[in-house]
This record gives sequence, structure tokens and C-alpha cells, in this order.
Amino acid sequence: MRVLITAGGTSEKIDQVRSITNHSTGRLGSLIAAAFLEKEAEVHYVTTAAAKKPPMIKNLFLYEISGTHDLAEQLTGLLKKYTFDLVIHSMAVSDFAPVRSFSQQAFLTAINDQFQKKQGPLDEKDLAQLTQQVKKDEKKISSDTKQLYLILEKTPKVIQIIKKLQPQTVLIGFKLLVDVSKEELIDTAYRSLQKSHADFVLANDLSQIKADQHIAYLIDRNQQIIGTATDKKAIAQMIIKTTNL
Amino acid sequence: MRVLITAGGTSEKIDQVRSITNHSTGRLGSLIAAAFLEKEAEVHYVTTAAAKKPPMIKNLFLYEISGTHDLAEQLTGLLKKYTFDLVIHSMAVSDFAPVRSFSQQAFLTAINDQFQKKQGPLDEKDLAQLTQQVKKDEKKISSDTKQLYLILEKTPKVIQIIKKLQPQTVLIGFKLLVDVSKEELIDTAYRSLQKSHADFVLANDLSQIKADQHIAYLIDRNQQIIGTATDKKAIAQMIIKTTNL
Repeated sequence: MRVLITAGGTSEKIDQVRSITNHSTGRLGSLIAAAFLEKEAEVHYVTTAAAKKPPMIKNLFLYEISGTHDLAEQLTGLLKKYTFDLVIHSMAVSDFAPVRSFSQQAFLTAINDQFQKKQGPLDEKDLAQLTQQVKKDEKKISSDTKQLYLILEKTPKVIQIIKKLQPQTVLIGFKLLVDVSKEELIDTAYRSLQKSHADFVLANDLSQIKADQHIAYLIDRNQQIIGTATDKKAIAQMIIKTTNL
Repeated sequence: MRVLITAGGTSEKIDQVRSITNHSTGRLGSLIAAAFLEKEAEVHYVTTAAAKKPPMIKNLFLYEISGTHDLAEQLTGLLKKYTFDLVIHSMAVSDFAPVRSFSQQAFLTAINDQFQKKQGPLDEKDLAQLTQQVKKDEKKISSDTKQLYLILEKTPKVIQIIKKLQPQTVLIGFKLLVDVSKEELIDTAYRSLQKSHADFVLANDLSQIKADQHIAYLIDRNQQIIGTATDKKAIAQMIIKTTNL
């Protein structure tokens, strides 16, 4: 059996010394990988520099990426090279990446110019023009401004690549929310399963993740909760069991 | 001899799952600490979770912080409790922290409202009003917007605390720029020495930092380059030598 696992959190550069980072220790992913390695699966593991790594034993192939763009490239390469029985996409991927930054003064000038031209309320197209100016290759944003304005744009949904390139693989997506009701968590996770054409989605809530606790629900295509786990090791075992190893 | 060293890079939360992080591996800081520990100094080491740690031997006291606010609190506490012969502030501290985020639509509404009220070009005060609305305790920013607008504000300069609380300590500040001339690097580093009342500043340029190379200049209060080093271990030794151990 060949498994592809993503874990850790991606970073998107603001400039050469600052990034926006999605938090993820990678602990859950490393435990899932360890459980599959124990079952003698071949594990291809895509992760980030700061994330906790699985045991570096035979059958583990490790790939490090940093941002969403790298991740998409790495996954595309792997999915074209190997056939995977199972893909577990637990990585916390940046939804937004910085496209433009303004000092307070530059931002004022830019929007005042837009209003001058428009002579009326601004709309989405006008905002788009703010970012259309060629993005300067900002080396390090000067700290010589009281406020900084950062415009971020949605990143492409990397998970979509998986079923597009390997429709036959079994895909488990992850959805993390913060402090919502169980109902909202399940609903939101299920919608993300539909969008990504995943077979299962693991739904979890940051407010229910502590040092020795990690409450998670595994949801299938019929929006049924087919499993519940209360810590990271149990999540790994639930995934193993569901995928019939 | 008692030394206080800061190392690593701070993070400022955007919401509960995302942060803006200043990159720093903490390798240089850990080598400087190791060099002082070898000289049997007592080393108090303030760092971040992701940063490389010095050898955990006797005489090392380790403190972990995350953001600028934690850092200021931790340093204030230590400077009130202990007298330090030397403070080496190598941590990459966030210059800006997020104060407000807007979806594209919310941002349009907010600035169009401002223009409506003002009936003329906006100024700094009008922008300030955008952030004066009480910051919502954003749990996880919804990804349901094409663009995200993030307003960041300057953080207080933590380095200023040091000489204010212990005017007699010897303070070494750090200045990192990206791809500038040597002249600009030295000038900018010297201005930061003046602002922070440091005794020395270590000036370095990211474009001259590679796996086995780290070019750095140690500058004193007379704007003299009193030392040049070409790798991290040499920087640690240069600091040891300058501080007469």
C-alpha cells in the first residue's frame, strides 16, 4: 500500500524576512505516518521545516515545502510519478497570500487617487487596481511607517489537484475550525469534502485540542459521522481502521 | 558574569490559526550562548519555540516567548530580578502587529463610508478611524472573500526597555537588512544603535548569509567598525573578545 500524507503548516512570504504562517505542529500527521509505517505501508510525507517529523525509517519518503505554490508543485510531481492508494491531506494550507503592501502614506495616496478618478464609491474593480500595479520585489518592508496595509489574495485550493490527477485514490481531507458548535463543524467539514471530492473529511475544532486531547470526527460522503476520536493516537488508528489496513 | 541573550523570531497573531512571523533560525544566538557558557558565564536565554536552542547545560536558563508583548514582559521581569553585565539582543522582533482585518466587501464599505462623511481626500486620522472600531476577537478569519485587507501597527521598540532598566549594562543590538550597500548597512545599524542607546550593534545583510557564511560587522558608539566576521562561530568569538571575557 502506498500512502501520501501532508502535514505541518504552510508559510507565505510578505518579504524576505517576514511570513504569514498557518500554525500546525505536525504532531498528528507524524503519528498518522507512524501508524501506516507500522503496517508496512510506503509513506510519502510532504511537510514543512518547522513541523515534527515521523520516525525516519525504511519506507518513509520525506519532502519539505514552504508555501502553497511549492506544495502544489510537489503534490503534482508525486501524483504524476506514483499511484497512491490513499492520500491524507492534513496540512494547514494558507488560504491567503500577500500580494501588495503599502505604508500608511502610500496607501492614502493610492486610495485618494482612486476616489479622485472615480468621483464616487469604489468597487471591487477599483480595489483590484490597487494590486495591479506591479508588485515590487520588496526585500524588507521599511519599518518607517506607523501603519502598514497588507492586501492578501486567496490562494488556489491545492486539495483540488489530488482527485483531478488520481480520481481513483481514497482522499481524506481535514477541516479545522475554532470554537463552533458540533453541528456547524460537521456542516462546514462536509461542504469542504464536497468541494474537494474527498471520500472522508476529519473535522476538528482548535478549542477541543489540548496537550493530551484531540477531539475529531471522521465524516463520509453521506455526511455520516463514521468515527469519533479523543486523542491524536486514536485519530491515527481510526484512519487506519477506516482505510482497511 | 551574567549575560542575557535573546534569539529566534517573534510571531504576532492574525487570528487563532495564523501569525506573522519574523524568520530566524536562532542558530547564531545558540552559538553565542554556547561560547559564553564555555567561558562559564551564567546565560539567561530568551527565545521562541521554533528556534534552535543552545546546549542545555548548567548555567543556562531558558525562557520561551512568542510575541512582542510577551518578550517585553519577560525582559522587564528578568531585568528587574537580575543584574546583567551584558545583554545581547539578537532576536528578530516583529516591527508590526495586525490590529484589524477586513474582507474585501467590509473594507469597501468602511472606506466608502469614510469618503461619504469626509467629502474629500482621506488623511491619517480617517484611516485611524478604520482601526478604532473595536477589534473583533477574530477566531479564524473566514476564507470566504477574494481579498483580505490587513492593517498592521508598529509595535513598541522592546530594545528600549533594556538601557532604561539597566543603564550600566553593556548592550549589543542587531540590525539585519536585505541586499543593501555596506555603507547603507553601517549607517542604518548605527542609527539603530543611537536610538536604542546600545554600546555596540552587529550589522548584517541577509544576502550575505548562507549555510556556511555569515558576514557581520560590529560597530561601536563612534561608528567605527571594530570587528568583521565571516561565519556564525567567528561572530560569537568576536562578541566574546569585545566584551573582554
